[in-house]
Amino acid sequence: MLQIVGIDLHDIRFPTSIGLHGSDAMNTDPDYSAAYVVLRTGTPLEGHGFAFTIGRGNEVVCAAIRALEPYLIGLEVEAVAADLGEFGKRLTHDSQLRWLGPEKGVMHLAAAAVINAMWDLAGRLAGKPVWRLLSEMSPEQIVDLVDWRYIEDALTPAEATDLLAALEPGRAQRIALLEKGGYPAYTTSPGWLGYDDETVIRLSRQAVERGFGQIKLKVGADLEDDLRRFRAAREAVGPGVRIAVDANQRWGVHEAIEWTRALLPYDPWWVEEPTSPDDVLGHAAIRRAVAPVRVATGEHVANRVVFKQLLQAGAVDVVQIDACRVAGVTENVAILLLAAKFGVPVCPHAGGVGLCEVVQHLAMFDYVAVSGSLTDRALEYVDHLHEHFVHPVVIRDGHYLAPQEPGFSGQMRPESIASYRFPDGPAWTASSTGLTDGATKG
Amino acid sequence: MLQIVGIDLHDIRFPTSIGLHGSDAMNTDPDYSAAYVVLRTGTPLEGHGFAFTIGRGNEVVCAAIRALEPYLIGLEVEAVAADLGEFGKRLTHDSQLRWLGPEKGVMHLAAAAVINAMWDLAGRLAGKPVWRLLSEMSPEQIVDLVDWRYIEDALTPAEATDLLAALEPGRAQRIALLEKGGYPAYTTSPGWLGYDDETVIRLSRQAVERGFGQIKLKVGADLEDDLRRFRAAREAVGPGVRIAVDANQRWGVHEAIEWTRALLPYDPWWVEEPTSPDDVLGHAAIRRAVAPVRVATGEHVANRVVFKQLLQAGAVDVVQIDACRVAGVTENVAILLLAAKFGVPVCPHAGGVGLCEVVQHLAMFDYVAVSGSLTDRALEYVDHLHEHFVHPVVIRDGHYLAPQEPGFSGQMRPESIASYRFPDGPAWTASSTGLTDGATKG
Repeated sequence: MLQIVGIDLHDIRFPTSIGLHGSDAMNTDPDYSAAYVVLRTGTPLEGHGFAFTIGRGNEVVCAAIRALEPYLIGLEVEAVAADLGEFGKRLTHDSQLRWLGPEKGVMHLAAAAVINAMWDLAGRLAGKPVWRLLSEMSPEQIVDLVDWRYIEDALTPAEATDLLAALEPGRAQRIALLEKGGYPAYTTSPGWLGYDDETVIRLSRQAVERGFGQIKLKVGADLEDDLRRFRAAREAVGPGVRIAVDANQRWGVHEAIEWTRALLPYDPWWVEEPTSPDDVLGHAAIRRAVAPVRVATGEHVANRVVFKQLLQAGAVDVVQIDACRVAGVTENVAILLLAAKFGVPVCPHAGGVGLCEVVQHLAMFDYVAVSGSLTDRALEYVDHLHEHFVHPVVIRDGHYLAPQEPGFSGQMRPESIASYRFPDGPAWTASSTGLTDGATKG
Repeated sequence: MLQIVGIDLHDIRFPTSIGLHGSDAMNTDPDYSAAYVVLRTGTPLEGHGFAFTIGRGNEVVCAAIRALEPYLIGLEVEAVAADLGEFGKRLTHDSQLRWLGPEKGVMHLAAAAVINAMWDLAGRLAGKPVWRLLSEMSPEQIVDLVDWRYIEDALTPAEATDLLAALEPGRAQRIALLEKGGYPAYTTSPGWLGYDDETVIRLSRQAVERGFGQIKLKVGADLEDDLRRFRAAREAVGPGVRIAVDANQRWGVHEAIEWTRALLPYDPWWVEEPTSPDDVLGHAAIRRAVAPVRVATGEHVANRVVFKQLLQAGAVDVVQIDACRVAGVTENVAILLLAAKFGVPVCPHAGGVGLCEVVQHLAMFDYVAVSGSLTDRALEYVDHLHEHFVHPVVIRDGHYLAPQEPGFSGQMRPESIASYRFPDGPAWTASSTGLTDGATKG
């Protein structure tokens, strides 16, 4: 019998603000970071999980993970792995901790880290990558993962079971296709706001050469700049490549509509995070006004209740789940089911540090068992910081290859953890890093 | 020139779970707590603020306040007091910290504590209670407090200025009325879920005798229990007293509708938190289905963007602001203005520890300058833990008397801070407290 005997907690930060990688209209100087947790069993079997943040405040998420520790120590791993839905509920519905959300913000990021660590452990225990662990569950087992509180008005467990059962016969074929060709990706690497035009053009061409059928540009700080950069990128890649734009919540509703319309000449495929992630009605108004441009959001959407409403209100064309924002794999299963019910494609958010590694499992599970489709699906890819992972993602011809190693692929290399620990790791104490003011405020 | 030279931070918890005071369908065993911050100036002038929590996780909010410290040290108090709107924005829009929300959960609770502490300090500096400080601002000054991002589609600064200007002539008269008769209160003290029927009956009668025109009962755990307790309370107080019911987010949308309809024979005045505080569309559906019963929510509503939508969607009859959930006084000014625009009464959430003391200022400001009305307004009152405050609320004939002392009334007595510090204060280390398991998990 395997028990959780302790947790290790690491505040890990990469000084990415120096090169303006990851810069956008709202996140001007991110230091990609992880509040990183290891569930220890006293054996070589461990569960690794993390919440992604962009620097300052990473220590607050670490404190929140520490607050969940009493719910972890002593757990019997086999029993938890057999009922991961119950485990998710226990972590998100503590009668006192839920006051701090409920189900949002720092406590939910902490829940994501811990729940994903447990999924990692469950995958290792079963000897399977998490996407396959999920894809081999029966419809009833999948439905049992979901916390149905607050979403049954949009989707009932019975409807979800039917939806999953209808796709069950095709699972084996889709798994085979996935293992052969991988899952389609798009890339944001060309379009960071801090990049000059030449860099945008060069990286856009390079992306197409490498097989990506879609790229994404950051917008929203200055309209003239956006028009110029967008035109340059469009000319670089031609009309056949999809170019999405991402405002990272910069606008109010009216501004979002005007700005998006101004970009129409260059054919934006979707406009992402046009306004506050909390504004369901605002997204619905924007979507009505900017059609045929699609509206996408999700990386900051707090939980399944807000996703439910985005779908009910017809507010989004693209659901962008994030592996570490909501309560981990378990809550994302609910969101995938809701999206399938409403027939809206899921194109997960990734990038940052480690987000590509983990969220690929959810996209692949969605294809195999929930939506059964690749139409208009693409998983974000950014080519930073993968070298810090034991099993980094593998991209070939613009596709994510299906991971085969047991677990959730989020394990960071021990030497990276040692180097980038904040504030005491050598990456932060060495004088040679030339840290910016923003990067040292943490 | 006065500067912020340091902050003191206290994790304060009261073992209220022992007596089941404060128990409801979701918060079964709260230990009323405060993440308490003091802004020090090196002079006797200090600013006191706190975020309210119900126990476990209070230390996470303390960590979040600590993360805001770099934005406080060295600030010139007079300059900040002259532009409190700018101060609020600086605390809630840090380019890295906003990833942890944005504007919700733990980081927003921390912002509430700090921003309210700064308002306390501004009031002391001006020698005025905060309600009066606000009530003496010009319409333009009040409009300048607001972070207009994400709400201008519902209310523009110009509309808000007009709305405030139209009520300006009557301010002096309303201040005079307020200082004479106070602000109407209702009480939740009779109705905690952990109380037996006899206690409910006795406390309900007592509330009416003490001049309260409205009481509130907790519901949602068991329908038979709710019907029996509601009938008992109704018989105890008669048909003329308003009885609100509060489900504390226990239900899904359909369940909320059915349960509320079942309570109709006893004439519920409003149903509070029928479902998830994130579910704007759910509240709208419930409201349509349970009319004429009013729908109320707000104590867990994350920010002004969600309040905006509750009003836009016609989802609420009663807006329940909380002084310490959103980003303090400043964001609550925005919410009061939105409610006034939509003609929806504000009945603030209070209780807990210290919430009555601070939120009374916002209710009084609303009456004087924003809504200009007391119709269907009532401010929650619970008679616990006031003895720990230097200037506790004063209730007479079911009304809050207007505070006259400079500041925001949230200063806790030094001996209470010393006694209830968690986990090292004597209230927590003494063996005689007989702490429950739940209370010690913190």
